[in-house]
Amino acid sequence: MKNLTVTCWNEQAENQYAYPEGIHKCIAGFLQGACCIGEVRTVSLDMPEQGLPQEVLDTTDVLVYWGHAHHAKVTDETVRCIKNRVLDGMGLVLLHSAHASKIFQTLMGTRTEKLAWRLQENEWEKVWKIEANHPVTRGVPDCIYIPQTEMYGEPFGIPAPDELLFISGYGQGEVFRSGCTYKRGAGNIFYFAPGHETYRIYDMPEIQQIIKNAVRWAAKR
Amino acid sequence: MKNLTVTCWNEQAENQYAYPEGIHKCIAGFLQGACCIGEVRTVSLDMPEQGLPQEVLDTTDVLVYWGHAHHAKVTDETVRCIKNRVLDGMGLVLLHSAHASKIFQTLMGTRTEKLAWRLQENEWEKVWKIEANHPVTRGVPDCIYIPQTEMYGEPFGIPAPDELLFISGYGQGEVFRSGCTYKRGAGNIFYFAPGHETYRIYDMPEIQQIIKNAVRWAAKR
Amino acid sequence: MKNLTVTCWNEQAENQYAYPEGIHKCIAGFLQGACCIGEVRTVSLDMPEQGLPQEVLDTTDVLVYWGHAHHAKVTDETVRCIKNRVLDGMGLVLLHSAHASKIFQTLMGTRTEKLAWRLQENEWEKVWKIEANHPVTRGVPDCIYIPQTEMYGEPFGIPAPDELLFISGYGQGEVFRSGCTYKRGAGNIFYFAPGHETYRIYDMPEIQQIIKNAVRWAAKR
Amino acid sequence: MKNLTVTCWNEQAENQYAYPEGIHKCIAGFLQGACCIGEVRTVSLDMPEQGLPQEVLDTTDVLVYWGHAHHAKVTDETVRCIKNRVLDGMGLVLLHSAHASKIFQTLMGTRTEKLAWRLQENEWEKVWKIEANHPVTRGVPDCIYIPQTEMYGEPFGIPAPDELLFISGYGQGEVFRSGCTYKRGAGNIFYFAPGHETYRIYDMPEIQQIIKNAVRWAAKR
Repeated sequence: MKNLTVTCWNEQAENQYAYPEGIHKCIAGFLQGACCIGEVRTVSLDMPEQGLPQEVLDTTDVLVYWGHAHHAKVTDETVRCIKNRVLDGMGLVLLHSAHASKIFQTLMGTRTEKLAWRLQENEWEKVWKIEANHPVTRGVPDCIYIPQTEMYGEPFGIPAPDELLFISGYGQGEVFRSGCTYKRGAGNIFYFAPGHETYRIYDMPEIQQIIKNAVRWAAKR
Repeated sequence: MKNLTVTCWNEQAENQYAYPEGIHKCIAGFLQGACCIGEVRTVSLDMPEQGLPQEVLDTTDVLVYWGHAHHAKVTDETVRCIKNRVLDGMGLVLLHSAHASKIFQTLMGTRTEKLAWRLQENEWEKVWKIEANHPVTRGVPDCIYIPQTEMYGEPFGIPAPDELLFISGYGQGEVFRSGCTYKRGAGNIFYFAPGHETYRIYDMPEIQQIIKNAVRWAAKR
Repeated sequence: MKNLTVTCWNEQAENQYAYPEGIHKCIAGFLQGACCIGEVRTVSLDMPEQGLPQEVLDTTDVLVYWGHAHHAKVTDETVRCIKNRVLDGMGLVLLHSAHASKIFQTLMGTRTEKLAWRLQENEWEKVWKIEANHPVTRGVPDCIYIPQTEMYGEPFGIPAPDELLFISGYGQGEVFRSGCTYKRGAGNIFYFAPGHETYRIYDMPEIQQIIKNAVRWAAKR
Repeated sequence: MKNLTVTCWNEQAENQYAYPEGIHKCIAGFLQGACCIGEVRTVSLDMPEQGLPQEVLDTTDVLVYWGHAHHAKVTDETVRCIKNRVLDGMGLVLLHSAHASKIFQTLMGTRTEKLAWRLQENEWEKVWKIEANHPVTRGVPDCIYIPQTEMYGEPFGIPAPDELLFISGYGQGEVFRSGCTYKRGAGNIFYFAPGHETYRIYDMPEIQQIIKNAVRWAAKR
């Protein structure tokens, strides 16, 4: 089986709080060399054609997408091109605030930007594994403790996921469907909530395991 | 419980092959007076604001939508207004070729216009009830035989429905997920495939029963 | 539409900690007189045929089932009779520790007794509404705060629910799929977790609203 | 990744109409040597402990199960042992009339033996692929034509599948959910309907592809 070509997209090229190198480069760093994963590219919104010209999309097996503050800058044309590739079978892994991205909302048909939200000192999160035996949850413990996080809570305006893989809980009793799979056309989509820019959650091995698993699961074989 | 206000929308005002009065008027005819249903309006694409000005949408509990040949004429603004009302809780019943309408594609996030298709003499269809006890299938027999129909077949590019209520079969062995429910935001959506304009399927009591049930199920209480 | 006949079953007839009258009698008390609900019976494990002779089951539209400490005393024959009635269309509302009852395990096919668990002072629970527009969640606020509770947490060994309606969160970050619907045959099943015997949760109007809604939803019409 | 150990179980050791060697041996023949599949065993009901002693189950990654006429002979103890292994992560692929087996009914919680049925000359079947990009449907054409078959039709008393992968259609307009996935505990379950004993359907490369895919998908990694 050929190795997967992965493209890590970010709305910003660098200087993202705890990630001076840019979050997409951090993610690319741990995907590089993982089982079944071949070339890993990093692209960003400031590049020509917003980092996703057709030839990049056409040669991408799985797109990993991180966005938070600049959703409105992504053009309808970029969204249209991503959507078409997803429907044709490109995998899509949406991270953190990508819940409010145009591409997620377009694929879901809802106002997925709706959720509860809080950013404060000493906010921790527990991510609970709901499905014991799924390609995305393999090797992941029953519960992941994240010591510093941004709270995302229900009600969350998503369609019922095809599979609910993770639910997060917080110290004030909020809950969140933090790991969800969807199929749209031939494309596999995974949304995973943890990943705020001010804490280096993407350095945690359990979080890296989930994202590596998700990339392998989302790819069309 | 107050009676429901239903709006029946059609892309054409009249002269639709077997329905000289317009399909929406035929549907309004059997909805009128049905249990729990109050005012039933008929509107069409040729009317101001394409028949769906905001005040009509705002006072509609359930929108019944029939379209086939003129999807491209529906403006993005009309689609946006319908979508927002659905997400806020207006029920939506999509009939026949509404699978290819902009509003259905927008709510599904896929290319739902993709399906197999055939129109020929003596094409019959059997509609099988998959869920025995669902508000939409109540009082409906296990199998409805439609003597003249247009064939719609798999593969059909929809997301997996929240609930699959009906599957149709045809004489050459095609199958079709002909009755599907979805939730988007607070809106209940039902797609029902039978209903070609050249045969008066909407005169069949079993088909009328399904559409009446669907209107009552789709309404927000 | 005729009013529903509801049977409230309990493993114990009376003297249940905070419920000297018996939990089933408390529940029957607020169901009595609710919209669409007619006769409400209370039966218990100590009665002939464990409170559920065939003629009681045959005339029950919805069975509300509360059990915790005496699951093993329910005979396989009682379970068989309940199951057959559910498959034929009797609604079933399972409360609290009924997750570990023989009837729930039999209908689910899994070891649903598996879950995390803690009973301590000052344990509170927040019950979050996941589906905005569902018959069971109508009139229920986005979040219900229960000041004293028993913690039930993931991982919970249930099959993925047909619909996930509520998720609970606790102060130590546990989460629980606390409101789940299933269909088995013609029977609608709702599992709702809150309801420990040492706190009078069933006196809370929001909890009563959910159970009333669930009874109406579960009934076959 | 280690190769999978597969056990093919059959209710009969040999002399099954079109399969003098026994259907399980035919299936083992094409699984042997397939990608990711290692040891393939064949066992049957007439063997000690009905072919499935604990040490066989404990060393089986995926159990392929074919039964039709002798479901009642399978003991409750055998069913209990299979069920426990499935909940702990053994994959289970159920073929043809295994829909009416005790193990399937036990895992589903319903009367899955309920379906429409017909056996006649010249009955053909078209198996339609519903999910374009799923591990079980990979490399499978949109439609498989089976020239001789037994008709299994809706209504079929199963719970709504977690994923509906195939729907079959027949010349008289019947339809059937012929490929369904379920999860129970850590176990992946796939039911696939085609496979009557009087026609050598299991010699068809497309059918073999589906079963090989299903074995790989069902295994716990």
